[in-house]
Amino acid sequence: MFMHNKRLMYTVRVSETNPKLASLMLEQFGGPQGELAAAMRYFTQGIAEEDAGRKDLLIDIATEELSHLEVIGTIVAMLTKGAKGKLAEGAEEAAEALTGMTAGGESHTLNLLYGGGPALINSGGAPWTAGYVDSIGDPTCDLRSNIAAEARAKIVYERLINITTDPGIKDALGFLMTREIAHQKSFEKALYSIENNFPAGKLPGMPEFADKYYNMSQGDGDMRGPWNQGDQWEYVDGRDEQAAVDGGDGGASVKLDRIESKAVTQLAERTMSMPDGDPTTGADLGAGPGAGKTKDVGKPAKRSVKK
Amino acid sequence: MFMHNKRLMYTVRVSETNPKLASLMLEQFGGPQGELAAAMRYFTQGIAEEDAGRKDLLIDIATEELSHLEVIGTIVAMLTKGAKGKLAEGAEEAAEALTGMTAGGESHTLNLLYGGGPALINSGGAPWTAGYVDSIGDPTCDLRSNIAAEARAKIVYERLINITTDPGIKDALGFLMTREIAHQKSFEKALYSIENNFPAGKLPGMPEFADKYYNMSQGDGDMRGPWNQGDQWEYVDGRDEQAAVDGGDGGASVKLDRIESKAVTQLAERTMSMPDGDPTTGADLGAGPGAGKTKDVGKPAKRSVKK
Amino acid sequence: MFMHNKRLMYTVRVSETNPKLASLMLEQFGGPQGELAAAMRYFTQGIAEEDAGRKDLLIDIATEELSHLEVIGTIVAMLTKGAKGKLAEGAEEAAEALTGMTAGGESHTLNLLYGGGPALINSGGAPWTAGYVDSIGDPTCDLRSNIAAEARAKIVYERLINITTDPGIKDALGFLMTREIAHQKSFEKALYSIENNFPAGKLPGMPEFADKYYNMSQGDGDMRGPWNQGDQWEYVDGRDEQAAVDGGDGGASVKLDRIESKAVTQLAERTMSMPDGDPTTGADLGAGPGAGKTKDVGKPAKRSVKK
Amino acid sequence: MFMHNKRLMYTVRVSETNPKLASLMLEQFGGPQGELAAAMRYFTQGIAEEDAGRKDLLIDIATEELSHLEVIGTIVAMLTKGAKGKLAEGAEEAAEALTGMTAGGESHTLNLLYGGGPALINSGGAPWTAGYVDSIGDPTCDLRSNIAAEARAKIVYERLINITTDPGIKDALGFLMTREIAHQKSFEKALYSIENNFPAGKLPGMPEFADKYYNMSQGDGDMRGPWNQGDQWEYVDGRDEQAAVDGGDGGASVKLDRIESKAVTQLAERTMSMPDGDPTTGADLGAGPGAGKTKDVGKPAKRSVKK
Amino acid sequence: MFMHNKRLMYTVRVSETNPKLASLMLEQFGGPQGELAAAMRYFTQGIAEEDAGRKDLLIDIATEELSHLEVIGTIVAMLTKGAKGKLAEGAEEAAEALTGMTAGGESHTLNLLYGGGPALINSGGAPWTAGYVDSIGDPTCDLRSNIAAEARAKIVYERLINITTDPGIKDALGFLMTREIAHQKSFEKALYSIENNFPAGKLPGMPEFADKYYNMSQGDGDMRGPWNQGDQWEYVDGRDEQAAVDGGDGGASVKLDRIESKAVTQLAERTMSMPDGDPTTGADLGAGPGAGKTKDVGKPAKRSVKK
Amino acid sequence: MFMHNKRLMYTVRVSETNPKLASLMLEQFGGPQGELAAAMRYFTQGIAEEDAGRKDLLIDIATEELSHLEVIGTIVAMLTKGAKGKLAEGAEEAAEALTGMTAGGESHTLNLLYGGGPALINSGGAPWTAGYVDSIGDPTCDLRSNIAAEARAKIVYERLINITTDPGIKDALGFLMTREIAHQKSFEKALYSIENNFPAGKLPGMPEFADKYYNMSQGDGDMRGPWNQGDQWEYVDGRDEQAAVDGGDGGASVKLDRIESKAVTQLAERTMSMPDGDPTTGADLGAGPGAGKTKDVGKPAKRSVKK
Repeated sequence: MFMHNKRLMYTVRVSETNPKLASLMLEQFGGPQGELAAAMRYFTQGIAEEDAGRKDLLIDIATEELSHLEVIGTIVAMLTKGAKGKLAEGAEEAAEALTGMTAGGESHTLNLLYGGGPALINSGGAPWTAGYVDSIGDPTCDLRSNIAAEARAKIVYERLINITTDPGIKDALGFLMTREIAHQKSFEKALYSIENNFPAGKLPGMPEFADKYYNMSQGDGDMRGPWNQGDQWEYVDGRDEQAAVDGGDGGASVKLDRIESKAVTQLAERTMSMPDGDPTTGADLGAGPGAGKTKDVGKPAKRSVKK
Repeated sequence: MFMHNKRLMYTVRVSETNPKLASLMLEQFGGPQGELAAAMRYFTQGIAEEDAGRKDLLIDIATEELSHLEVIGTIVAMLTKGAKGKLAEGAEEAAEALTGMTAGGESHTLNLLYGGGPALINSGGAPWTAGYVDSIGDPTCDLRSNIAAEARAKIVYERLINITTDPGIKDALGFLMTREIAHQKSFEKALYSIENNFPAGKLPGMPEFADKYYNMSQGDGDMRGPWNQGDQWEYVDGRDEQAAVDGGDGGASVKLDRIESKAVTQLAERTMSMPDGDPTTGADLGAGPGAGKTKDVGKPAKRSVKK
Repeated sequence: MFMHNKRLMYTVRVSETNPKLASLMLEQFGGPQGELAAAMRYFTQGIAEEDAGRKDLLIDIATEELSHLEVIGTIVAMLTKGAKGKLAEGAEEAAEALTGMTAGGESHTLNLLYGGGPALINSGGAPWTAGYVDSIGDPTCDLRSNIAAEARAKIVYERLINITTDPGIKDALGFLMTREIAHQKSFEKALYSIENNFPAGKLPGMPEFADKYYNMSQGDGDMRGPWNQGDQWEYVDGRDEQAAVDGGDGGASVKLDRIESKAVTQLAERTMSMPDGDPTTGADLGAGPGAGKTKDVGKPAKRSVKK
Repeated sequence: MFMHNKRLMYTVRVSETNPKLASLMLEQFGGPQGELAAAMRYFTQGIAEEDAGRKDLLIDIATEELSHLEVIGTIVAMLTKGAKGKLAEGAEEAAEALTGMTAGGESHTLNLLYGGGPALINSGGAPWTAGYVDSIGDPTCDLRSNIAAEARAKIVYERLINITTDPGIKDALGFLMTREIAHQKSFEKALYSIENNFPAGKLPGMPEFADKYYNMSQGDGDMRGPWNQGDQWEYVDGRDEQAAVDGGDGGASVKLDRIESKAVTQLAERTMSMPDGDPTTGADLGAGPGAGKTKDVGKPAKRSVKK
Repeated sequence: MFMHNKRLMYTVRVSETNPKLASLMLEQFGGPQGELAAAMRYFTQGIAEEDAGRKDLLIDIATEELSHLEVIGTIVAMLTKGAKGKLAEGAEEAAEALTGMTAGGESHTLNLLYGGGPALINSGGAPWTAGYVDSIGDPTCDLRSNIAAEARAKIVYERLINITTDPGIKDALGFLMTREIAHQKSFEKALYSIENNFPAGKLPGMPEFADKYYNMSQGDGDMRGPWNQGDQWEYVDGRDEQAAVDGGDGGASVKLDRIESKAVTQLAERTMSMPDGDPTTGADLGAGPGAGKTKDVGKPAKRSVKK
Repeated sequence: MFMHNKRLMYTVRVSETNPKLASLMLEQFGGPQGELAAAMRYFTQGIAEEDAGRKDLLIDIATEELSHLEVIGTIVAMLTKGAKGKLAEGAEEAAEALTGMTAGGESHTLNLLYGGGPALINSGGAPWTAGYVDSIGDPTCDLRSNIAAEARAKIVYERLINITTDPGIKDALGFLMTREIAHQKSFEKALYSIENNFPAGKLPGMPEFADKYYNMSQGDGDMRGPWNQGDQWEYVDGRDEQAAVDGGDGGASVKLDRIESKAVTQLAERTMSMPDGDPTTGADLGAGPGAGKTKDVGKPAKRSVKK
């Protein structure tokens, strides 16, 4: 069960309203690396988790992220408080309000659509989607996802700190950023407390493909490093050895039953693009009478007559 | 520049058509852990990467993932080949086609909408979205994201292998799964080749918050483990010590200018919900004349008269 | 600040696993009328609310909805616990697992993608989106939205109860349904505690259009009722009185400057579809030599020759 | 059947082109409170409605909203007419066109993507989605949703009027805003013409939970009002009385069969995070040799050796 | 199998960084007419294609589009290279960085979220979605879709060229635009190489409806042209002849079984909106004591008493 | 202005309810090729169209498509009428209702979420999105898009006819399918009435690239046809001639100013992945003590020590 205490986890002190900055802050409210995404990632993992330790950890941090969501949302609410009031109350400052809300980005969106309230959108206006939550129900995968997510969230806070001058906001963002570091450490500990956490799952890989490195991108810029050289790696460079690596013909086949076979054949014949001839096309019709001139480069060289 | 060789990276041998299984396979074609998501994750990172070694690595693997996308998509195409033909050609097998396409899941979707071609949807029918791509432009974050993504993809392939009996498909899935393991190893090497890769970015955390663990979820089930105990951690249990951790009052404030202040006050007064009195509401109106009886539990105990 | 107590708000007792039922339950976990949508609707309103009473109310209920989210999510986790285990552990029950997961709907999605964990999707597999949150930053609007949302959530719970036979689940769903009723009553009280809550906002309507009812859909089935008859309403039936109701010509105009005007004219001339003549089209080309026969009804009657 | 009359429902007179303003107007074209959302909400309800009166009402208003969609879309088309021409025709005003289209917000999007035509996006660029349509197939719910939707649309029009100075646009927006008021009144009448419209549906709530108010958010700021005090309400303040309100233990249980049970146990054992020990983690590896210094606050205090 | 060559298909020479321009360029990276959409459209068609010639064509062009994706993405990476560095490295240029990133549009989004890397979003910030891919598994449809898609992509490149002054970018865009023209020509040839490609599919239309033109929009502005006049067309003008064109009553019917019939009747009776009477509504309650005054135009003329 | 006539454009006669079939029919209600997509495509084009003839045509057909939307939606409403009633009224048929709603696909979604009303989703449950509308504001592009869209819609109707046995539904679908054919013919006439409609727009292509065909996909299966052979085409086969086709080095460059240059260098140095050495990684830590055995193929051959 969740409970709420009216004190914020971190006191929010904003110097002055600034709808533009508010729009940027939304990134950590309703963006992919934001606090709702974090809270929902850990919460959905936690309620299905079998391991008592991890379940506790996941719900602990999910709850803290909800508290962070409240902090960042409150920062947005403070930054837009003035615009909200002016827009709601009205007419006389219309021109100024318009200017204030539309200059330099998304802030008109925030105020016009949402009336100055923090909306679950990213700083570009895209609504939050559960597609951001990458939980997959396997603890070694999910912990790795959490580690990565905390690292990403840390960086977005760092960027927000870099572009903010308001000391109160910088301070609160510093707290939020630091907690992502702490959370990453916890998730790392939980991951490495699982024996044999790599590779994920139970099925072993096929030995003949587990240590090969396929050099798929070739040319000036090819590099070697610990990720593709050393005792561990077999470096596969030849284009022929990269195709049909099973030793087959690299084709695709399926057995069709009689009815399927007949239908597929019929379909293929009915819709064949004949490789011979040179049919007049819609583009030919559309290229116009002047076609053929050098500057009309889109037009086919050979023209059919029409009209 | 990308080039294409008509041989698949792995030969696809499918025993018989099976639209239902095809729908499940879509998970790795157009799903969040699928090959397009992988290819686009690495490709978008690669083209903006400054480090020559990582750039090479990212484009190598992006290109391989595109080749995997072709393999899994071809499996889908084989599995739906018969249904595609029958649906396109026609009338007489209508009833049977309907049955084959709608029993047990999404396969009707696959065939009806996309005509049996592999669509960029997940196995639940949700279209692929760039929201799945979590690249953030910082190498230590992105490599961690890639490591996690490879682990997740490995698990989805393992699940698909577990529910497949067709030996040719199992074999190809085994290859694809193994390559995710190999890719994870490469990304791990690249990450740990960056000195001081933790925490991500340049800004250090605030020391007073970097090693605290807030026990936000309390009760029967609280657990300790390396993620919240040991020399490193300060375990914060008291609810009072979890709120307003900056030592402030846990409130929120912003300085408004005179016009803002006036507008906000006016807005607040105009829209105040008065705490006194007991207004008749729409629910009161709607609860009907019989309200008050025990079984009408939704209806307010105290009724206002109307009509 | 949010806190968490390990006891659920309502005890969850599930008789047996049932992945199919789990898929249906997702409707109230990650669907538009579900608990996350409710929690986020009230939470985003609450943190920007100026009125102390409503702020308290909104955060109270937001917090309770989070607790409900945990209850419904836990029901899903119980219903899929077996499938999750079998899928993760493996090979031998593959065929059975496939059957259990794909028969009758979305359950394969739930298990295959999310490994049996509750995912933030609706029962049709569509990911949760912040587009479901209709907060607009005006209290009389938002309270009406909340009233409607609670009513809708009540109905979805009623439907879920109707299709469930497991007594423990029915019981928990009954609790959740009842709380939606209670919440609706609270929001109604808060709305009607605002004086002059209708119409929303400050701007009055234009008197000449505020009490007209336009009978836009005409024919057998036209009805009158309190929504369009009585002293209050002026019923506008004539098609001519429904168009250009401002008394103008019903056209559209804008003043263009000289450069704009020239560009628009040039654009119009360059891309004019000439009303005279009968050009040969791509469809003409494509209708084939047999065109004109009665059964080829898609083909134009008048044919141009080609090839 | 729908028909169209070439006269607009309200004459559109725009003083001068203004792509920036056009972007804001899109809010009511392709935004969540816009005219397409309104039309589709009522239309989808209307075609499935059993009650002849409501069916008539819903289709009447759906049709009028389509006519409004045409008015607001035409305003957008007028405001972008010049930019559209200049962009299409050309090169010489390139720099100026770029400035005009990108200064202050989204207008570059409107013109660049959609060529100056009204696009079904909100003012922030997010595409319209059927997720905005909250119809649920129960008339008391749907009418409440409609009432709320009309109130929200009224407010967005009010905001657009407040930021517009063009008298012709202000006038047309005034008409559109007024009609939302009229529609709300009609939907209110239709709702309260249903006897016993509260609570929605047939199932009564559980009496023991229908009149409780859980004070979930506590601290400085707790308020009482008609929404949680008075004869009707039982105010539940104690944290213990808020958890496991059914009197159970607040836990979750499900009966597993033998195979399930074995699989779940095996899964739990295989993936247990061991609570003892202090494993070296990836973060430990990544924190670098200098770890331990005060400023490196992200780095763990206790270091494992490596390399 | 895909392979990669480190040389770009077209050399990218950018004069100076320009994050604003980068945002506009994203339109062809992650927008609906962009290169990913093109590549995925042809690739998904190609892997399911039965016709060897078309399969080859589709994969040829899909591969080229991936190479174009790399070119346009690299342009974005060059344009944001400076902002990326400054944002990542730091504090001192904060104010300037903020200005540079937020003035005039979306560029703050690009940098803040994605760290200066090319993201799969359109120029308005909306994430790429597979909803852009309109492949339907029928070659005559898909080729027409491809023709249209190439034409649209050509126009977006033309617009980007018109707003760009950097000669190196203009040059590369010119190449990309030209290739869309070439691709359109190829797809046209492939379409018209299919005999009887119109109408698509096998089922003929119903002769009585295949050549009618319904004049659904009437009034000042009605036009005739080859699309609705000439021997081919029957122009249907009368409103009565446009409704129920099958000669029926234009109604809808379904046979219900006994249980269904009873349930539907019960539902209709339970939720009837009574056409008589004039119920007090929530709007009546909310209109306040001053209702009835001329300026309170939203309020009903006839008032019920309350409070 | 839109008006509505209560008679449907085509009489709907459904033999019996069938929720499963209803789900499939949704494809043309809320799917990408469905009637809403068609109506919105033409409507948004029409209101911004400068050419009087095309404007008339577009609004005519948009209006007809809305009338079709009503027909297909009414078919869905008839097919789900029984399920809607039973679900709403209740308890006793619960088990049967569950079966009826969940067997074979999406129908539970339709009924549970939307209460039997037609929802704006495709047959796979994905909500309608304006991403389906590909209008771009250039008439030659938009008409080509319309032609393709009509062809696709025709095919989906053909597929629905093929899987339907109810004669009344087949009949109505036949009408709808036929009208798509007629619409395609009209759009073709409008396109080819524009002189010089190919290529779209004003800018000519670059002559050196307009007639080249790059054979990007090579190997067994290479084909020639009118799309890449004949006088018009120059066939480019050599991989070297496909890269850096401008004659440059295929690289990418941008001029950075001094501050940018310093920041980028600093960033590169700070985050370099060192190509030498072989760092211990998280995967190494996670591979466990048993690593090195043949079957543990995911584990690196060379192990670092740990714990």
